[in-house]
Amino acid sequence: MSEAVAEYISANIKRHIDELVSWLKIPSISTLPQHAGDVREAALWARSKLEDIGFDEVRLIEGQGHPLVYASWQGQEDQPTLLIYGHYDVQPVDPLDEWRSSPFEPRLENEYIYARGATDDKGQVMIVLAALEAWMKAVGTLPINIKVLLEGEEEAGGASVEEYVRGHGGDLEADAALICDTHMNSITQPSIITGLRGILYTEIVVRGAKNDLHSGSYGGVAPNPLHALCLLVARLKGEDGRIHVQGVYDSPTDVSEEEMVFWKGHRQELEERLLAEMEVSQLVGENDLPVQERLGVRPTLEVHGIRGGFTGEGAKTVIAAEALAKISMRLPAAMAPESIFPAFAEAVRQNIPMGYDVDIVKLHGGKGLFVSPENEYVQAAAAAIVNTYGVRPVYMREGGSIPIAALFDEVLGMPVVLMGFGLPGDGPHGPNEKFSLMQLEKGIRTVADFFGRLCRG
Amino acid sequence: MSEAVAEYISANIKRHIDELVSWLKIPSISTLPQHAGDVREAALWARSKLEDIGFDEVRLIEGQGHPLVYASWQGQEDQPTLLIYGHYDVQPVDPLDEWRSSPFEPRLENEYIYARGATDDKGQVMIVLAALEAWMKAVGTLPINIKVLLEGEEEAGGASVEEYVRGHGGDLEADAALICDTHMNSITQPSIITGLRGILYTEIVVRGAKNDLHSGSYGGVAPNPLHALCLLVARLKGEDGRIHVQGVYDSPTDVSEEEMVFWKGHRQELEERLLAEMEVSQLVGENDLPVQERLGVRPTLEVHGIRGGFTGEGAKTVIAAEALAKISMRLPAAMAPESIFPAFAEAVRQNIPMGYDVDIVKLHGGKGLFVSPENEYVQAAAAAIVNTYGVRPVYMREGGSIPIAALFDEVLGMPVVLMGFGLPGDGPHGPNEKFSLMQLEKGIRTVADFFGRLCRG
Repeated sequence: MSEAVAEYISANIKRHIDELVSWLKIPSISTLPQHAGDVREAALWARSKLEDIGFDEVRLIEGQGHPLVYASWQGQEDQPTLLIYGHYDVQPVDPLDEWRSSPFEPRLENEYIYARGATDDKGQVMIVLAALEAWMKAVGTLPINIKVLLEGEEEAGGASVEEYVRGHGGDLEADAALICDTHMNSITQPSIITGLRGILYTEIVVRGAKNDLHSGSYGGVAPNPLHALCLLVARLKGEDGRIHVQGVYDSPTDVSEEEMVFWKGHRQELEERLLAEMEVSQLVGENDLPVQERLGVRPTLEVHGIRGGFTGEGAKTVIAAEALAKISMRLPAAMAPESIFPAFAEAVRQNIPMGYDVDIVKLHGGKGLFVSPENEYVQAAAAAIVNTYGVRPVYMREGGSIPIAALFDEVLGMPVVLMGFGLPGDGPHGPNEKFSLMQLEKGIRTVADFFGRLCRG
Repeated sequence: MSEAVAEYISANIKRHIDELVSWLKIPSISTLPQHAGDVREAALWARSKLEDIGFDEVRLIEGQGHPLVYASWQGQEDQPTLLIYGHYDVQPVDPLDEWRSSPFEPRLENEYIYARGATDDKGQVMIVLAALEAWMKAVGTLPINIKVLLEGEEEAGGASVEEYVRGHGGDLEADAALICDTHMNSITQPSIITGLRGILYTEIVVRGAKNDLHSGSYGGVAPNPLHALCLLVARLKGEDGRIHVQGVYDSPTDVSEEEMVFWKGHRQELEERLLAEMEVSQLVGENDLPVQERLGVRPTLEVHGIRGGFTGEGAKTVIAAEALAKISMRLPAAMAPESIFPAFAEAVRQNIPMGYDVDIVKLHGGKGLFVSPENEYVQAAAAAIVNTYGVRPVYMREGGSIPIAALFDEVLGMPVVLMGFGLPGDGPHGPNEKFSLMQLEKGIRTVADFFGRLCRG
């Protein structure tokens, strides 16, 4: 990265913070219809900013839902193209009374900016925009070709972006993708995410008698679907956290020795953080394995909800005719949800007690992702991080899914660099969401440097 | 029973049906405030009828809720006193669209009367009223002393009657009680109920993390109270129906050899009826024991409801902070709910997985009841049944609780004769509730005969 770019970043950081503040003031909550106009305003803000930076082509892509913002700059014929993804929509703000200042009146305090969307994801998109601006204004050109795709439905299911990626892959053609929408291990230990778990989400309905029954008259002989469901769930996963679904532990997890060494070394640190965050005295499940492994690559099976019978005030002696459960599995990246679903369904049928009917529906499936740390784009990101932070990044796995990353991998077939600058404790979906101003500046430097490192020859 | 009483019953049966129709027309739904006036009207109807029969003292007992109807006739100084209980309130009528005729426009068809309250309990109280009338009008006196207590809150918790029984036991002093509010084994096999199970009803709340968590970020290490609840329930009762609570099988059940012989002989018949009623292919639980034993005297443990997490449309990857279950146990008559609750609570604490907090609350407890078939009042009832039906009654146990029966036993210390004339299939709480007109007439004859048999010397 040239001296000029670095100086431009230093000289303009205050203005970038001001710009971010103005963007954060727009309450672009994508799930609430009354905020549709605000979501559009946030999209227009981004379009205008991309035009100011100097992109050749900047446009809104209109569809059924909130618009996509698309920008392209193709001024470096022999250089690679990087596709950058981010989102300009935000989560709802409830519980509002837990915010110490209004979520859409950004507050600067103790080197943090507090606002809804600060870390997820406007602050991190600002990093990208400022890095692009720095190159363009300080050097007069970008070192590589860039495409930018910002969506306004990330917090609302992402239907529009998925449709666009599947239908207009050509517009998104690139050599690699960059997503800044995750967090680092800590402020002193930067990290790059190289793996995401996949997910299989199911709904199970267990049926007993034709109608609800009175436990006085039928209790002891009648099928009780809630009891059957409890027996089933207990058989699918024991107290030891082991999942009893055929083949669930058969996929390779691509965990490198380096990752395992880091995980073992930092096990206690993360355990303590999790215990504090959850306010519990112990973790449950496979306590013989490092927490990072369990959160990042081990399959899980979780019951998300159970509904059935009488749960109001007081005592009603009903035996419910049916009971419902929502159960998901998180999957190692190499395991496709379609391939494990039959085994899951078979495990349910095998383990449901005699005398019950059971329906098993797959509600949702999403593949995981694994990018090798050896990949040249990941290596470039790591080198940029070393340059800014003075520390080698560690490679981490993310337990949740980032559907867009899996989509880029699956549909566009490109390596995805997940380099985020959030920090643990930023509270992306909760009250008092915040983003570190130091991370904002370091992020801009790192991303600008990353661009430069992708320039060949 | 004198010829005169029998003739009076035959001569007046049509009028008694007309009277029952007029009473059934009053929609005395005790749980719905908008029907409070109707409930009162049904009470006044009963008061008026008791006055017409010729009781010395007839009055409404007013309290917080619906009134009690009390009547007393003490014209036989040297004879025993029988306390007769019934209720004049009825269940709500939903689902209304499943009724083939309006629930409060009684319909006579195929020797049945269809209406809400037909079998539960106005039709059965009509049996008692007609039997009393027959004695009084045909003979000019009752053979024994009689007290009548009718309540209007049986379907709404019975608070008023409980308060009255506990506070005014003297007014209810008697040698025995008769309750006609149950059903017989079949129209050809009359039965008397000699045992009721008790009940212990609890609510359990399992707590994990302080707040709901995202399964992507925490799944695999976070406590999941729904999973813990499933493990707990599976440990409290297995697929084999055995309950794992210390001491639950230690109480004597007072099952006579005669009862066991009947249960074994009629096991298949009842099993087939239950399978048809529930529309299931098999019974669950302790299938090595006769159904009658399992429904009548074996302890049960049933989950009545589970609530927790996300159960709406679609997929939400939440790990709930807490989960709730309603769990009851039905108890052998000799086992007090207060005595088994500590063992139940201990079993919950022992079986909840590590890493969870659990609250266990006793919501409700009710003692069961056992009256020996050798009791002279039960013997008199049996003899009256033989006289009317030409068949010896069998002694049955009722799986549900009849709180008033346990209350008479506990507070008033008198033997309770549970001689009901309903039939399986009458559908007391469902649509198209009905009562057999043949049972109405046979019931009047049986009860009138029973009164005569209690007359000494």
